[in-house]
Amino acid sequence: MKLATVRIDGSRCTIQVDSVDDAPDGGSVTGRIVDRRELGALLTANPTGIRGAVESGLRRDGDEVTVPLTDLLPVIPSPSKIFCVGLNYREHIEEMGHPIPDHPTLFVKYPSALTAPYAEVTVPAGMTDKADYEGELAVVIGSRLAGARGGATAEEARAAIGGYAVMNDFSQRDWQYRTQQWLQGKNLDRSSAFGPWLTVADDYDPVTEGAVLRTWVNGDLRQEHSTSDLVFPPVDLVRYISNFATLEPGDVIVTGTPEGVGAGSGRFLTDGDVVRIEVDGLGAVESTIRM
Amino acid sequence: MKLATVRIDGSRCTIQVDSVDDAPDGGSVTGRIVDRRELGALLTANPTGIRGAVESGLRRDGDEVTVPLTDLLPVIPSPSKIFCVGLNYREHIEEMGHPIPDHPTLFVKYPSALTAPYAEVTVPAGMTDKADYEGELAVVIGSRLAGARGGATAEEARAAIGGYAVMNDFSQRDWQYRTQQWLQGKNLDRSSAFGPWLTVADDYDPVTEGAVLRTWVNGDLRQEHSTSDLVFPPVDLVRYISNFATLEPGDVIVTGTPEGVGAGSGRFLTDGDVVRIEVDGLGAVESTIRM
Repeated sequence: MKLATVRIDGSRCTIQVDSVDDAPDGGSVTGRIVDRRELGALLTANPTGIRGAVESGLRRDGDEVTVPLTDLLPVIPSPSKIFCVGLNYREHIEEMGHPIPDHPTLFVKYPSALTAPYAEVTVPAGMTDKADYEGELAVVIGSRLAGARGGATAEEARAAIGGYAVMNDFSQRDWQYRTQQWLQGKNLDRSSAFGPWLTVADDYDPVTEGAVLRTWVNGDLRQEHSTSDLVFPPVDLVRYISNFATLEPGDVIVTGTPEGVGAGSGRFLTDGDVVRIEVDGLGAVESTIRM
Repeated sequence: MKLATVRIDGSRCTIQVDSVDDAPDGGSVTGRIVDRRELGALLTANPTGIRGAVESGLRRDGDEVTVPLTDLLPVIPSPSKIFCVGLNYREHIEEMGHPIPDHPTLFVKYPSALTAPYAEVTVPAGMTDKADYEGELAVVIGSRLAGARGGATAEEARAAIGGYAVMNDFSQRDWQYRTQQWLQGKNLDRSSAFGPWLTVADDYDPVTEGAVLRTWVNGDLRQEHSTSDLVFPPVDLVRYISNFATLEPGDVIVTGTPEGVGAGSGRFLTDGDVVRIEVDGLGAVESTIRM
């Protein structure tokens, strides 16, 4: 089951995606309306499980719609927390000569940094000459997991995962590294494509399936790596975070990027570049850069 | 004008604080009800200015109430963004032999880490033996300031500041430093007292007034420093952040802590400790630690 947040008649709705036409000259998705709220609100209102809410929503509404990919919105527009993870692909860490870390490195993306999966990304003039992409697997929490009481079991953590999506952890490397903390290089307004939809976890587990993440810039393949290489896979990340923080429905954990970012090769993004990130089974996000 | 978010009959309300009885055996605040929503929602609904909203709210409602300090809630319970600042007191930086930084160091506190100004703070058993306080001046945004377009002027930044409050940037030092990024040592659920109320900016500017911040642990003075020593004062922080992110009403910037934290002396918090932080003119927050 795939659920998307889309703009219909100026309002945000959740649809169940039935088919996708990913035409190079502007594709579309066809689906049925589940709810006249965005997916994050729907998850929050149904913390014990989205599947029943979708079925009753389809019975109540269920109008079929076809919307252009450009009317997809960030699949969860306003998570209460977005945890990003650094240094999480084993082969890349070893290649760089670092030891495999004992603990995940966590930093933040505010919801204001999210953008729609097929939106243009505007970088303010003169702000940075080191704009960069990071293709990542995103984990979306489906049900509340109370934290700060010693950490969840693997079973509890697995049950709390609602589904998966794709994110571009957009970065400005000069801002990221001008102080010790990365926040200011990771939070440009409306920079990080998030979607295209949520693939529900009990249908598909990308890490177990060895789903491959691929990033292209203007059609040129830059990242290609199996998500099964994650040092801290989704269940471990959920367990770790639950040691100190409660996870709420719609919260997001972005699991880190493999080798092949622009910072590695010195090829940073410029005006007109098209960044496409795809994870097997989860669809793609595609950002056109304006700067 | 001082505005607090309080619990009345199980609901969150905004009151204008008229008087405070800070008795050692359990004080109270007396004020009038402005709105039957918390202060963050009131700011969001009145982005062009809180003063007019308060006046009309008092005319419409205005019931006088006296509530115990323990019924105060985090003054803004759910900011869309909380920016914390590291390394921002000049004398402390110089004393430690660091150069004065060119850019502020920014990291995050999620709203889930906030707690009421007079709440107990529970640290899970066995989680940390390096629990610590940081007394800080908090800046609350009153009106929306669009970001990512080259940075605001000083005048725009000043106009966007709605007021000031006090925060305990509660930290677990072992978690803070186990990776490069500080997030996981700064985000324990319900750990960071925030309040006790908002002192509206056009009544009082603590930095210009040279307001002194003081922190006591069990009555023992541990931090005492003038906020006029900030390397990046509130207006500069707002301008800096507006280079990349839009600031919304209720967003918070916590400006950093002066010398005197437990990590400096090796005296970390233990069960039963009472941490009191006060900034001249802004009131105090007081947390009893349970661990």
